[in-house]
Amino acid sequence: MMRNIKLTLEYDGTNFSGWQWQPKDRTVQATLQHAVTKLLQETPKIYAAGRTDSGVHALGQVANFETVSELDLTSIHLGLNSYLPPDVVVLEAEDVGDEFHARYSAVKRVYRYVISKRFRAVTRNYSWFCKYALDAERIRDASRHLVGEHVFTAFCRESDEEPHYLSNVESLKWTETEDSLILQICANRFLHSMVRIIVGTMVDVGRGRIEPDEVKNILESQDRNRAGFSVPPQGLFLEKVFY
Amino acid sequence: MMRNIKLTLEYDGTNFSGWQWQPKDRTVQATLQHAVTKLLQETPKIYAAGRTDSGVHALGQVANFETVSELDLTSIHLGLNSYLPPDVVVLEAEDVGDEFHARYSAVKRVYRYVISKRFRAVTRNYSWFCKYALDAERIRDASRHLVGEHVFTAFCRESDEEPHYLSNVESLKWTETEDSLILQICANRFLHSMVRIIVGTMVDVGRGRIEPDEVKNILESQDRNRAGFSVPPQGLFLEKVFY
Repeated sequence: MMRNIKLTLEYDGTNFSGWQWQPKDRTVQATLQHAVTKLLQETPKIYAAGRTDSGVHALGQVANFETVSELDLTSIHLGLNSYLPPDVVVLEAEDVGDEFHARYSAVKRVYRYVISKRFRAVTRNYSWFCKYALDAERIRDASRHLVGEHVFTAFCRESDEEPHYLSNVESLKWTETEDSLILQICANRFLHSMVRIIVGTMVDVGRGRIEPDEVKNILESQDRNRAGFSVPPQGLFLEKVFY
Repeated sequence: MMRNIKLTLEYDGTNFSGWQWQPKDRTVQATLQHAVTKLLQETPKIYAAGRTDSGVHALGQVANFETVSELDLTSIHLGLNSYLPPDVVVLEAEDVGDEFHARYSAVKRVYRYVISKRFRAVTRNYSWFCKYALDAERIRDASRHLVGEHVFTAFCRESDEEPHYLSNVESLKWTETEDSLILQICANRFLHSMVRIIVGTMVDVGRGRIEPDEVKNILESQDRNRAGFSVPPQGLFLEKVFY
């Protein structure tokens, strides 16, 4: 009988060229594929909720694959971890119905972006150091304009694979600590580089180069050139996927 | 005129064979020495408050060296960072009196040890995963016996370099979060492997193998064989040094 296995994964993106299989580079998909093949002697295609870029981390990526194996879930969970390198960890393995697809069944995703206020060593691969003083209140004020369903053409990289540039941003929350400024953003879908371009634009707002209300005009312009730069990948985490 | 420069340093110990210079291995001292030589064209001996082991991190290590350079402090600070690799960062540079010695002038040091309750990927080099369920209340109860001035022979590795095994532990605080159990320990001096052996013993207490009050007897026995194992280095951080 064919089973559909859902995996929840954590990975450190530092030494991966992103999720998606590449002919020459080390990717999370290929690494996981290798572990599945070793454990189950099958090579099913593995799908992920979000194809993270090079250097991007995941705290709760979700993947699925089909198998005829009758191995129990605990053995799949621990068996995969025994074949995986230390920078990828299976957090949970579940049996799901055959209609479940990690990418297409997802209704909501949460990403996190960590801006470090200090030039640091220990956190250098898990945050982006911003050398400018940022006004969190201006950033929160500007962020209001992005909540809701909008066409995010100004805030993403163009892609042939996207049928449209609509996204429904449910929430966009900034938390300031002594050392960092952290964005948590929740939306039904994320376009390519969307979180990183939103953060880059908010950095311009926070340092005074863009007025908070100007963000509304940038969004409506649908002009990528009017938004900010794309901040580096190492501050980005795929935190959770909802089904 | 001879100046004495005090540096406050952060480093990620993952890819270092500890602080101290070694003929073949990459160490923090040699890396810093190299940057100082590049910047100042001098090769002074560099002293550190605590000679951290391989894999141990520092959030606030303190070092000092003498120089005849007249370079201003901001240039020393930023200049060293420009020559240092990303896993070592100078947080601050100060001029101090010629009597200042990073190691011998220190009156108090604070270390942190992070135990992870979950098997993780992103934090794997900055915490130690403990597979046992730990009772934090038992651990706090047992920790009381270690506060104060005691002979810590049972809780350290023997060393020819130590004149005595006395240490005055000012405080020993455990903080529990959803994912981790964190020790913050403050003492005038730390013996070799002292924090890691204390943590290993507390793991035995927390999982029920040693009774909290038994820690008093272990301490008084001065017998290393009666205390617990030495937990791995990657959970350990030299947090702060007081002068």
